[in-house]
Amino acid sequence: MSKENKMITPRDTDFAQWYTDVVRVAHLADYSSVKGCIVIEPNGYAIWEKMQEILDKEFKKLGHVNCQMPLLIPEGMLNKEKDLVEGFAPEVAWVTCGGSRELEERLCIRPTSETLFCDYYSKHIKSHRDLPKLYNQWCNVFRWEKETRPFLRSREFLWQEGHTIHATREEALKETNQMMDVYYRFHHDILAIPSIRGKKTEKEKFSGAEYTLTNEDLMYNGVTLQMGTSHYFGQNFTKAYDVKFTNKDNKEEYPYQTSWGITTRMIGALIMVHSDDYGLVLPPKIAPRQVVIVPIGKDNEEVVNLAQNYRDILLENGVTAYIDDSDKSPGFKFAESEVLGIPIRIEVGERDLANHKVMFVRRDTREKMEVSLDINIVEYTKNLLETIQNDMYTRAKRRRDDLTFTAYNLEDMENILNTQPGFIHAMWCGNAVCEEKIKEIKGCKSRCILEDKEPITDTCVCCGEKAKHYVVWGIQY
Amino acid sequence: MSKENKMITPRDTDFAQWYTDVVRVAHLADYSSVKGCIVIEPNGYAIWEKMQEILDKEFKKLGHVNCQMPLLIPEGMLNKEKDLVEGFAPEVAWVTCGGSRELEERLCIRPTSETLFCDYYSKHIKSHRDLPKLYNQWCNVFRWEKETRPFLRSREFLWQEGHTIHATREEALKETNQMMDVYYRFHHDILAIPSIRGKKTEKEKFSGAEYTLTNEDLMYNGVTLQMGTSHYFGQNFTKAYDVKFTNKDNKEEYPYQTSWGITTRMIGALIMVHSDDYGLVLPPKIAPRQVVIVPIGKDNEEVVNLAQNYRDILLENGVTAYIDDSDKSPGFKFAESEVLGIPIRIEVGERDLANHKVMFVRRDTREKMEVSLDINIVEYTKNLLETIQNDMYTRAKRRRDDLTFTAYNLEDMENILNTQPGFIHAMWCGNAVCEEKIKEIKGCKSRCILEDKEPITDTCVCCGEKAKHYVVWGIQY
Repeated sequence: MSKENKMITPRDTDFAQWYTDVVRVAHLADYSSVKGCIVIEPNGYAIWEKMQEILDKEFKKLGHVNCQMPLLIPEGMLNKEKDLVEGFAPEVAWVTCGGSRELEERLCIRPTSETLFCDYYSKHIKSHRDLPKLYNQWCNVFRWEKETRPFLRSREFLWQEGHTIHATREEALKETNQMMDVYYRFHHDILAIPSIRGKKTEKEKFSGAEYTLTNEDLMYNGVTLQMGTSHYFGQNFTKAYDVKFTNKDNKEEYPYQTSWGITTRMIGALIMVHSDDYGLVLPPKIAPRQVVIVPIGKDNEEVVNLAQNYRDILLENGVTAYIDDSDKSPGFKFAESEVLGIPIRIEVGERDLANHKVMFVRRDTREKMEVSLDINIVEYTKNLLETIQNDMYTRAKRRRDDLTFTAYNLEDMENILNTQPGFIHAMWCGNAVCEEKIKEIKGCKSRCILEDKEPITDTCVCCGEKAKHYVVWGIQY
Repeated sequence: MSKENKMITPRDTDFAQWYTDVVRVAHLADYSSVKGCIVIEPNGYAIWEKMQEILDKEFKKLGHVNCQMPLLIPEGMLNKEKDLVEGFAPEVAWVTCGGSRELEERLCIRPTSETLFCDYYSKHIKSHRDLPKLYNQWCNVFRWEKETRPFLRSREFLWQEGHTIHATREEALKETNQMMDVYYRFHHDILAIPSIRGKKTEKEKFSGAEYTLTNEDLMYNGVTLQMGTSHYFGQNFTKAYDVKFTNKDNKEEYPYQTSWGITTRMIGALIMVHSDDYGLVLPPKIAPRQVVIVPIGKDNEEVVNLAQNYRDILLENGVTAYIDDSDKSPGFKFAESEVLGIPIRIEVGERDLANHKVMFVRRDTREKMEVSLDINIVEYTKNLLETIQNDMYTRAKRRRDDLTFTAYNLEDMENILNTQPGFIHAMWCGNAVCEEKIKEIKGCKSRCILEDKEPITDTCVCCGEKAKHYVVWGIQY
């Protein structure tokens, strides 16, 4: 077997090409004949299904219920909330014909569903007894992006959008925070991505929100990815859409709203944080298949029986194991299991069996371990999966820390961004003019404001005036 | 408690209004401000999730993998298959603007995805070693319907569409049959709907298919509902989209294709087959929540403890039980559990407990059963759920049989359709002219051809000429 997978450009040679190669070679997604839209292939979709399974359970545990709003929004309905229109109208797809007839009112394909939920709320919420409503939907949305890249930015993408509405400000604030907690924990505990979290600046927050909480990931190349946001709307939308309820004091009031979402982009993050020159590397907790068993010597009954025995006992104990008994050569199977990012490969060969052994191979480190047949296979595998999960997190965290810098002035900022971008910690005066000026350096943007942090200095990294916020900056996808 | 739910029009008074009332009162779906599109509310969506869970497992067991094709289809791509264009073009929604720019080529919202799969196949299938491919996707589709009704017919609906491609005709034929088996079994075993299955006539088959297998349900009012179809395409699409592979003899050949789908319409069928004047009635196997426990006397510790104890032990044993501990009155809770179609209600009251008893109430028959506290609650509940499931099937089958008629001539046909429609068994010559003539009687259509059935007569029900097919006819939704 060759030292590197020849079909994949080395990560350090050309990061962008490496990313595209991994997506293609691992059959995660394919370009479609529809400009800006991708086909999510079975290997990619299986990761999304696993993400859905875990997150959906979390949402439901917190009392949320799933529903489904329409795909299309009439233009007049979208226009009711000024900020939202300004934020989204330039990038929606418009349906203007139904069958052979031209429509009287254009319909846009939902870029997000706040308006549709408000329309629904306005019909169903009358009293404080109808509150809170805790909704979520898993669906596709559409934004007319100019530059697209598989998973990272495409015109259509899959996501979940949570929408909740509450009788009090406090309850809605709590919800906004709670859902950011869910995303943050999911990143750290399941995706093994050491994300950071904070508040968006006024400029970067969601159109129409009072504020936006964000979860930010750092990719291997130091570029940042916004992955998971939670918005507090206050009464902005309920006023625009005239949603009212009678509160406990029998007075009419506008309720308080939140929304929060996370997308198929996470698959892109998994690639860019963990993967390597041999293909995909998946944290065991999100890997649709955790263990591949490769029998070497298909006609040897002992080999075949042991492979089947291992698969069955692992499956019974909640480890998703499968046997690769295809006609390919063992070398090809090994390379393929690496490309696909299967966390553990167990090689069962005649020669090893003669020595009363099998071979375990970790995908993350590619380390090979000869293991005696006397071990408890379930326990050993489960421990190894846990070790891989933890080691992947530790390595990603070390990389993140290595690429986390502090800037005291604009020159520092420039030096960092010209040498090796990453998360840049710097103080900010709160003035959008400074944000704009920093953006001139390679498009660097504020990622999030960290609250309750010890200030680095008391002056703004850009203008030198009095600093108001501790901000993390970076170049974004 | 009133004898009937006042918010629901009696089924025998006005079937259409009764249906709409059940949908509304059970909060299954709501009309949206987007014409022809519905909001699937949490109670309706939970049923769909349960359907997805069960079917998805079946599909995967048979080797299918999930993926996701784009939402939009360029006009030129759709135009490649003549029959498909003719079948669908009059009823698609067209996107003509992206952002503020007019598009050079119109894009339609997928009414179905054969074209997109073919486009994908054409890039990825080269050799017989690449076959078969067994794909499925869960998604939304859009058809510009004129008349719409919640679940039964709406512009947007949710469905799954399976798409498979094979090296041989035999394999594709087998797949077409196998997937119809899955739908048929799902109807009988899970939905408790005694559907019939057969082949569509040339006139009624899917645009572009060589033939279509269909599963047909009979509603309580004798109207039929097509629910689940499986299409054999032969090489029709692979030729149109130029999908070729090198077969085992190293010759170029067009592969063989199938597709099969089932939709949120099934929720409509559940209502119209099983439900009654008190609201929804759900077969236990598809009910998102199987048991509601209503504590009567919220301050009585014994009552509260027993309710919790029952819920916990039922949940541990795989029965989805919950406690209704809201502030509503017991009478209101009883009525609500009936409207929602929860199969079993357990009433835990102070007075009953004093007699060492609790009350079980079946939703399907509304029968009340005093049960001693000494019983094995899990065993009793599981048995009762099974009894309900079986009884619901038996009742639906009796109704179907009662509404199944035989016609020997056109006069019979007219009499039946004017008195009480249902499944009408009658022989047919195979001529579309006769099909057209029968349609003039209240829009009655061929539902399916039953193969290998003993002929009723040897003459066509319409023209009296020699009969070719044993056909079931009916009025459809």
